Amino acid sequence: MPTALRLGLTLELAVAKVGKYATSESGDSVEVVERPHGGLSVVMVDGQRSGKAAKAISNIVARKAMALLADGVRDGAVARAAHDYLRTQRGGKVSATLNLVSIDLESRTLVLLRNNHCPTLLYNPKWIGVTTPDGWQYLNEPSEAIGIHARTRPIATELPLQPDLLAFIFTDGIWTAGERSGQRISLPLLVREALAAGVTQPKDLANLLLARAIELDQGRPADDMSLVVLAILHSQTAEDVRRMTVSVPF
Amino acid sequence: MPTALRLGLTLELAVAKVGKYATSESGDSVEVVERPHGGLSVVMVDGQRSGKAAKAISNIVARKAMALLADGVRDGAVARAAHDYLRTQRGGKVSATLNLVSIDLESRTLVLLRNNHCPTLLYNPKWIGVTTPDGWQYLNEPSEAIGIHARTRPIATELPLQPDLLAFIFTDGIWTAGERSGQRISLPLLVREALAAGVTQPKDLANLLLARAIELDQGRPADDMSLVVLAILHSQTAEDVRRMTVSVPF
Repeated sequence: MPTALRLGLTLELAVAKVGKYATSESGDSVEVVERPHGGLSVVMVDGQRSGKAAKAISNIVARKAMALLADGVRDGAVARAAHDYLRTQRGGKVSATLNLVSIDLESRTLVLLRNNHCPTLLYNPKWIGVTTPDGWQYLNEPSEAIGIHARTRPIATELPLQPDLLAFIFTDGIWTAGERSGQRISLPLLVREALAAGVTQPKDLANLLLARAIELDQGRPADDMSLVVLAILHSQTAEDVRRMTVSVPF
Repeated sequence: MPTALRLGLTLELAVAKVGKYATSESGDSVEVVERPHGGLSVVMVDGQRSGKAAKAISNIVARKAMALLADGVRDGAVARAAHDYLRTQRGGKVSATLNLVSIDLESRTLVLLRNNHCPTLLYNPKWIGVTTPDGWQYLNEPSEAIGIHARTRPIATELPLQPDLLAFIFTDGIWTAGERSGQRISLPLLVREALAAGVTQPKDLANLLLARAIELDQGRPADDMSLVVLAILHSQTAEDVRRMTVSVPF
């Protein structure tokens, strides 16, 4: 974007995912795609069931959403199209959860779309005592998975791009980790402890939360687990370099 | 992929890119996409000219290539289709360079496709005195940009997935950095020095090479610069966690 329009902010994004224990592969798909009018979008899909069957579902949904986002289609239409497409392909018999997260540099907003019963968690220390008592905001309005019912719509939230904002988006393998062993994970509590201990980078927060989720499932994830942590920070330098890293064991 | 088929290896990938000095945005596009049959692919496109015009070109090429790769289309067909598509869209009047790099877990190979006059550099310490005198291999067979001539084909190289392999893929803003000031960059020399100094992670190598390229252009990149560094390493842990980070200043 034009130097004159630089906001002096940096998006830091981290994704971590692992498959359900003893399955051949994760049934979740997470993809990042550049938006043609500026910014980027993250697509996170949790296909019904696990393993290869789930992956086939999450793959077709993620692929459709990515192609539309890369074409510049607005997020709300992308989520609706992904639903209609899955419902058409699978005759309304297969569901998936879908989250879209976009840094939209055209509107200068963070756009969060949920077709997922799991909430999205937002935190900003500047909100403490202003917007919310403790700086946390839960996006937990009832929301329906895609693929089954006619005319399913996403729950949309749009916020101005503001520094110090943290967002946590995840599939239910993360949200309900530990449930079977009676010690269900508390993501807000873990994040609060991590921040208090000086862990503030999305990469470190994602690693910490995923490790704790796996630990609470006794080292054997009871479900596919995927987690996106996003931060908007003041830029540390004036340089305009974009960076990405990927790590994949095989 | 099935645990039984784990090779005990990890792909580490780093991307770094910056736009030409005083342009509104980089004309290069770099995207990473998951392969439906296992593994992932990187698409790197340098659109003719710079700024918005170049970005529009690299975007349509990258978008087409990504959509086909996500559909499971084989890499050679993707490169040919991207060429035909650009040539049809722009009447053979606009060119772009295209690199495809795939970790293909179905064939268990690293697939490198070039439609770019810039070489791709490979290094493996195990090759020293065996495959090549110094462990370096240059993929520099003459190669044509896409979009102009009929039936343009990529130069393809396929290697077994082997530990300690390093690959460097870049656009000409990196390859010719410093040329205008008479001190042209030497990527192999820089990498050799970095490795000797213990810098072996793709992230660190990418940062170091990009920083040096910008420095040799007197802090004002003479062209869009994009760089992909890929390493195949022995896995440090048995965990099957995939990770990604993205950093975007805006």
